[in-house]
Amino acid sequence: MTAILSADELETKLRDIGARRYHNRHPFHALLHGGRCSKGQVQAWALNRYYYQASIPIKDASLIARCDDPAIRREWRKRLEDHDGDDETPGGTERWLALTSALGLDRDYVVSTRGILPGTRFAVDAYVHFVRERTLLEAIASSLTELFSPRIIGERMAGMLAHYAFIDRDALAYFDQRPPQAARDAAFALDYVKRRAVTPEQQQAVLAALEFKCGVLWAMLDALHFSYVEPGLVPSGAFVPEEAP
Amino acid sequence: MTAILSADELETKLRDIGARRYHNRHPFHALLHGGRCSKGQVQAWALNRYYYQASIPIKDASLIARCDDPAIRREWRKRLEDHDGDDETPGGTERWLALTSALGLDRDYVVSTRGILPGTRFAVDAYVHFVRERTLLEAIASSLTELFSPRIIGERMAGMLAHYAFIDRDALAYFDQRPPQAARDAAFALDYVKRRAVTPEQQQAVLAALEFKCGVLWAMLDALHFSYVEPGLVPSGAFVPEEAP
Repeated sequence: MTAILSADELETKLRDIGARRYHNRHPFHALLHGGRCSKGQVQAWALNRYYYQASIPIKDASLIARCDDPAIRREWRKRLEDHDGDDETPGGTERWLALTSALGLDRDYVVSTRGILPGTRFAVDAYVHFVRERTLLEAIASSLTELFSPRIIGERMAGMLAHYAFIDRDALAYFDQRPPQAARDAAFALDYVKRRAVTPEQQQAVLAALEFKCGVLWAMLDALHFSYVEPGLVPSGAFVPEEAP
Repeated sequence: MTAILSADELETKLRDIGARRYHNRHPFHALLHGGRCSKGQVQAWALNRYYYQASIPIKDASLIARCDDPAIRREWRKRLEDHDGDDETPGGTERWLALTSALGLDRDYVVSTRGILPGTRFAVDAYVHFVRERTLLEAIASSLTELFSPRIIGERMAGMLAHYAFIDRDALAYFDQRPPQAARDAAFALDYVKRRAVTPEQQQAVLAALEFKCGVLWAMLDALHFSYVEPGLVPSGAFVPEEAP
């Protein structure tokens, strides 16, 4: 029988999952941030990742749509605001498009998601379905990769600015905004699961939800690595980088 | 074969549905606004209607969750803000609870929705399911009862203030805010369906969606009327008004 954990023990186990499974440990991450990607590989990463970005508001609205507590809905609505923006301020998805445009990708092509890998689509869709179909507790827990994102974003910005002449600070405006938003969101979600996961079954479900979500991010990099690094086999219909001039 | 309508013909048909089917034509509406309800009947109305109010943000988030256009999501998010409020301002659901409290109903009892009629629950749940399961066009069209709500709200406020000593203007604060919000929302939704319903099939689906939604509001009053007016048979477990002292 699984023992019940204290709230702090649960947090320790969550952070341990991040230490072992978060996608900063993926070899593609090291290539990307270490300056060892070609421009075409960086384009492929940004193009595929767009589908994740564009799906996040769908995911967050799906979570709000199953939540009968107005206080949680209000808190979660901030995520919609961050990603979709408002009448004056562009949101995160728009800032991601600034990155793909800076990388020379056609905006309409990116938004169409025509060129993404099937593996990207399946992983992202699995995340949306998870949030729609599992318990609210698991749905909230699956967001907890944000506990680990401020650090990876710091590494990403430093690494990409240092190594890629085709990327400047404006192109990375998305990442400027995310760390405080992610820290706020992760603090809320962590507090929620620590208070609400009070049985061993709930605690195991929370841990499994974070493992699942780490798997989503990891599988996205697997797909990129397979198609654009090694063996470098791009499926028919997916984005093919132009040869370097 | 159904002929294609011009956008203005479609609007005329939509407004005609409102003229024939909107719940301002229901006998319970006439009783309520004409001052012919007992306090217990007004309580039953406000208690049951709470379930509708509380489900609206769920419905709106469900719509956002199936919408891949950030501009529509942003517009629709205003409805979430109106109903759920924000960190400073209470939303519509909270203002509805001010009404039920002013009517002497226990807040926790209202929020629990324990005392509502099964017919209320089925009608409201049918609306949420409609928005989740039909096309986005139909989901948006089903909101178009808001075209007709500013007038009913005017009638309701005037009638209730004039006739019921137990209701004052503060208790009706919900209705103060709604007309401009509803007018803005209805204008957006009407423009959307006029632009997007371009085949006869889409136009018929839009008209049917509004008829469906009128049926939701109508069935809620049917249930109230049956249980609290004529024959006045309250199902076991549902709210029973105290006898007038």
